[in-house]
Amino acid sequence: MIARVLAAELPAHIGERVRVAGWVHRGRELKSVTFAIVRDRSGLAQVVMSGPAPTEETVVEVTGLVTANPKAPGGAELTEPVLVVLGEAVTPPPFDLYRPTVSATLPTILDSAPVTLRHPRLRAQFEIAAASVAGFRAALDGIGCTEIHTPKIVGSATESGATVFGIDYFGRRAFLAQSPQFFKQAMVGVFERVYEVGPVFRAEPHDTARHLAQYTSLDAEIGFIADHRDVMAVLRHAIAGMLERAASRESAVSLLGAELPEVPAEIPSIHFAEARQLLGGKDEVDLAPTDERFLSEWALREHGSEFLFVTGYPMAKRPFYTQPEPGNPKYSNSFDLLFRGLELVTGGQRLHRHADYLAALEQRGESPEAYQSYLEVFAHGMPPHGGFAIGLERWTARLLGVANIRQTTLFPRDLHRLTP
Amino acid sequence: MIARVLAAELPAHIGERVRVAGWVHRGRELKSVTFAIVRDRSGLAQVVMSGPAPTEETVVEVTGLVTANPKAPGGAELTEPVLVVLGEAVTPPPFDLYRPTVSATLPTILDSAPVTLRHPRLRAQFEIAAASVAGFRAALDGIGCTEIHTPKIVGSATESGATVFGIDYFGRRAFLAQSPQFFKQAMVGVFERVYEVGPVFRAEPHDTARHLAQYTSLDAEIGFIADHRDVMAVLRHAIAGMLERAASRESAVSLLGAELPEVPAEIPSIHFAEARQLLGGKDEVDLAPTDERFLSEWALREHGSEFLFVTGYPMAKRPFYTQPEPGNPKYSNSFDLLFRGLELVTGGQRLHRHADYLAALEQRGESPEAYQSYLEVFAHGMPPHGGFAIGLERWTARLLGVANIRQTTLFPRDLHRLTP
Repeated sequence: MIARVLAAELPAHIGERVRVAGWVHRGRELKSVTFAIVRDRSGLAQVVMSGPAPTEETVVEVTGLVTANPKAPGGAELTEPVLVVLGEAVTPPPFDLYRPTVSATLPTILDSAPVTLRHPRLRAQFEIAAASVAGFRAALDGIGCTEIHTPKIVGSATESGATVFGIDYFGRRAFLAQSPQFFKQAMVGVFERVYEVGPVFRAEPHDTARHLAQYTSLDAEIGFIADHRDVMAVLRHAIAGMLERAASRESAVSLLGAELPEVPAEIPSIHFAEARQLLGGKDEVDLAPTDERFLSEWALREHGSEFLFVTGYPMAKRPFYTQPEPGNPKYSNSFDLLFRGLELVTGGQRLHRHADYLAALEQRGESPEAYQSYLEVFAHGMPPHGGFAIGLERWTARLLGVANIRQTTLFPRDLHRLTP
Repeated sequence: MIARVLAAELPAHIGERVRVAGWVHRGRELKSVTFAIVRDRSGLAQVVMSGPAPTEETVVEVTGLVTANPKAPGGAELTEPVLVVLGEAVTPPPFDLYRPTVSATLPTILDSAPVTLRHPRLRAQFEIAAASVAGFRAALDGIGCTEIHTPKIVGSATESGATVFGIDYFGRRAFLAQSPQFFKQAMVGVFERVYEVGPVFRAEPHDTARHLAQYTSLDAEIGFIADHRDVMAVLRHAIAGMLERAASRESAVSLLGAELPEVPAEIPSIHFAEARQLLGGKDEVDLAPTDERFLSEWALREHGSEFLFVTGYPMAKRPFYTQPEPGNPKYSNSFDLLFRGLELVTGGQRLHRHADYLAALEQRGESPEAYQSYLEVFAHGMPPHGGFAIGLERWTARLLGVANIRQTTLFPRDLHRLTP
């Protein structure tokens, strides 16, 4: 059998008989001729045939002669075709997949994700997401990180009891991990530098465009840092790697008209206290969404950067394991990375001394017993360390200007949605 | 501050003052001199000092003069050291991490994983695992696969109701996914070729050396195949990629004395019926563990291969979505890959026509309603496809000759174990 050729490769085979395979993206029957556009993972191929075209989304294999035609996609088309149906489409898609824009509403897209995501624009978003993840890994592999895989079932809900999913674990109560925080810190003790790409779970009771019950977290944790600024440098390196790979998906980027940002060699940063001054001087311990937008615009105006680090968040708003700012313990050695008006990443330096953990828990009035397994790690000698977590779906949404992260999630899970 | 140098890089810095950082792996106080061996992610560095050595596992930063010494690890040591403690070790490890072999029992290792995994031999296993995963991805990226991230919370337990974890999902009943089977098949309709590396969950009530409640599944699914043999070729390619990367971790491989197998250009294969003949001709529908060992030995003897495909497993033992063998529907277009006496991978060609799914469910007396979301995929035109899943922990265990997969899992979860 003739080896399969991808649609995008057709121009290199003019004059040859080749076999392509894919989905009938569109059939157009004119008076004397029928055009069937076949879609495969590389793009579109035009097949010139007679008689009726197969129903759209039928899977076909077409053997034909590659013929130059400047009007065809890529400048070549298949003539004298022999067409074999590999898989019938018995139900039409909920909207026409061949139209350049997506006309359906978000619920329609999500309800029929296995077919609606075939639309080239929707598909392209997930190509960018996959490339971003590959770039994240490549950047961190390049600086000596080790990839880890940690438990998603945990015995206690340390991060925030309110938004955790409970599991019946062989008759015992267990929980879905809200983050790999404990494990990635522990593994700094083994590998110094680690990352994990995996699902995290939040029983998020709010129905917003920014929250999901499961998302993909790109987590990193780095040992032997001087302070949080070393973590920020690693994050900058990771983001640059993600963008480099995303940019390499040229056809997806161009189809989506995505404007990929420049990453400054050093991303500008502003201390939380200074940021609050800029915002009018109110003594708040957090930034409102409008504040984040204001600061992002400020960074673009003042520094020409779509990224901005806000450092030194008040300890009152950070988890107990956060390293306070030396000499100013109201603030912390932590940061948020704002991107295009929104918080994209949270990170910082962690405590690393056993005694500091005990003191931090006591100060918050929490019992060390509840954290026994976590505290054990720091009894065995841990270096100064810190890390961050990037939400993949949020990253893709901001990068591509998509308003709702459900649209950058293959099969989102939220308060109302458990299928498909 | 002088930039940090890794232990393994010391020989390149003889005559310079450098800074190393790591854990005090071992202190040896002799009459006139003290040796402190510092362990970092690259290896060991010998520090020559006076007075008592810090407690083992203390995290230190040492600035000193790199001096040639053929007896030191790597042929260089640090003299005239200035030592700063970065993190105290307040509790000793449960066993001496500096001894070449691990003397502790498995429960001790697992109970204190954050510190016991610092032992170079235990750590090396996870380096090999991480390299294997990187090799899996690189091999599949190289043939046009797209990486996907799918839900781990699902609305129905399609694969096997008996061994599924239930979740309270906002007051509704939901389950932890036992595999990404549904999603990866659906995504063949979008990307043609996909893979996912992620956790899968089995409420496995048996306390064996082979089963865990959570493991890391390396899943692939490939569209536009002729039959299961195309899937076997992709699996062979993936395994070769995993081994290539594993081999590149030379120090880990050598420390463990791991004997990495050769992958034949074409892995030998035997049909299930023929295998049963070889085993004495009993009309069984499955292979017992002793049978798998026998066949593995046979493949090594007859074909010089540590890998063996057994194809054509009886449909009675395969899930309903399996493609039957053309002309012989008692058997299936599926396979197991045996490696060193054990089943390592299961895979095969799936049904791809909507009507075939309906018929297969009817034949098994199951209701299509329970599979509605799954069946929907095949109503929209799907190509012939198939795939496989490799259990990462099992792979690493077989590769390194480890008897219990708990030992190749960072933080195993089983019937009894939910911490650390």
